[in-house]
Amino acid sequence: MKRAVVLSSGGIDSTTCLAIARQEGYAIYSLSINYGQRHAYELNAARRIANFFRVEQHLIINVDLSVFGGSALTDQKLTVPKERQEPDITTGIPITYVPARNTIFLALALAWAEVLGAEAIFLGANYLDYSGYPDCRPEYIAAFEQLACLATKAGIEGRWKIKVHTPLINLTKAQIIKKGLELGIDFSLTHSCYDPDDKGRPCGRCDSCYWRLKGFQEAGLVDPLIYREQGAGGRGQGDRY
Amino acid sequence: MKRAVVLSSGGIDSTTCLAIARQEGYAIYSLSINYGQRHAYELNAARRIANFFRVEQHLIINVDLSVFGGSALTDQKLTVPKERQEPDITTGIPITYVPARNTIFLALALAWAEVLGAEAIFLGANYLDYSGYPDCRPEYIAAFEQLACLATKAGIEGRWKIKVHTPLINLTKAQIIKKGLELGIDFSLTHSCYDPDDKGRPCGRCDSCYWRLKGFQEAGLVDPLIYREQGAGGRGQGDRY
Repeated sequence: MKRAVVLSSGGIDSTTCLAIARQEGYAIYSLSINYGQRHAYELNAARRIANFFRVEQHLIINVDLSVFGGSALTDQKLTVPKERQEPDITTGIPITYVPARNTIFLALALAWAEVLGAEAIFLGANYLDYSGYPDCRPEYIAAFEQLACLATKAGIEGRWKIKVHTPLINLTKAQIIKKGLELGIDFSLTHSCYDPDDKGRPCGRCDSCYWRLKGFQEAGLVDPLIYREQGAGGRGQGDRY
Repeated sequence: MKRAVVLSSGGIDSTTCLAIARQEGYAIYSLSINYGQRHAYELNAARRIANFFRVEQHLIINVDLSVFGGSALTDQKLTVPKERQEPDITTGIPITYVPARNTIFLALALAWAEVLGAEAIFLGANYLDYSGYPDCRPEYIAAFEQLACLATKAGIEGRWKIKVHTPLINLTKAQIIKKGLELGIDFSLTHSCYDPDDKGRPCGRCDSCYWRLKGFQEAGLVDPLIYREQGAGGRGQGDRY
């Protein structure tokens, strides 16, 4: 059975990506990265999802990117914006950008893929609706794929070629959610919020919640998560999908 | 002052690379990676060297590549060859190859470089004499450089371009050692052995010791390290450089 390493953050995008990989017939090896994000709820969600999909193996690897600073997601000196913010007007890149994150994540996925002999890496990168992150652009992904073939022992030997799949790259959040539901995902298992409370309940106000809720709304659905503040979204506001 | 991130393993190559970066006028930010190699002597050597060169900052980042397995350097189930071995006859790649190692290391260096606004990464990759590792080839390095420019916020904004310097890539070990000495390196601070004893003394027999000792010999010099077994090399065998 062909194998895929799927980068799994516990959010909507990577979970939908995992479901797509499964549908395409891959044996799934899910990889989550504990990179010093400020809370562990993402990783707990990734564990639940690995379980839900009965993946072959789920690995969590620790790499503490907070030592470098430079991102609101890892740097204690910077503040994660509590409210939805417009990205930087000149660059379109949000403060939650983590320097070189996808390069690091893909490099780690590549290491595991080579050991497994996996032929695919799945990454839930999405460029159309959300991020504005440079390392979610199709030209970036293509460059990584090229690097990967030069980087590895198996690639040199010509007996292995790795493909980086980003099936969500041109979908809107609403399309991603609909696709995920078609594939049987229980989105109550996922976590997206940058600023959850100590019970892990999402705030409903940060950038990540904003895009999630907007996606559910545009899909004509209601997010199954229970939000910290009623009225932010989620249950009780309308029909549950 | 222009800044460089230098990947520093504590060995001869990366230390010479660091000295070259210093000579070229960079402020040095040295980065060592604790990737689950079987002993910590490398990291101790990297600390000594950071100190010796009075770098601006030295960071050690933990990323446990042993979870993936697949290399004798990190996988407890595989054995580091005690004796010098010929590489795999068909591929030329040794069992000490760590999957995607340089991709992971360069990705981490890139993250720090972006935060620092550093314009250079220095990597002591060497292709001519030693490794046979795919991720030490010039075409691999060029592909990473291209990726790096696409990967980063500062790259997209056009206000930053990163160069990956590999000044040793076409030097022999002997040439590297001579170059390092010219630049004032005390090589007794470095560590190379894959299989040191519990005092950190090198074995004199593994692949890494083999190339180190061969390099000193071809340079007409004697390694200042004290080897576990007399006769393996090092002090007492001839003139100290």
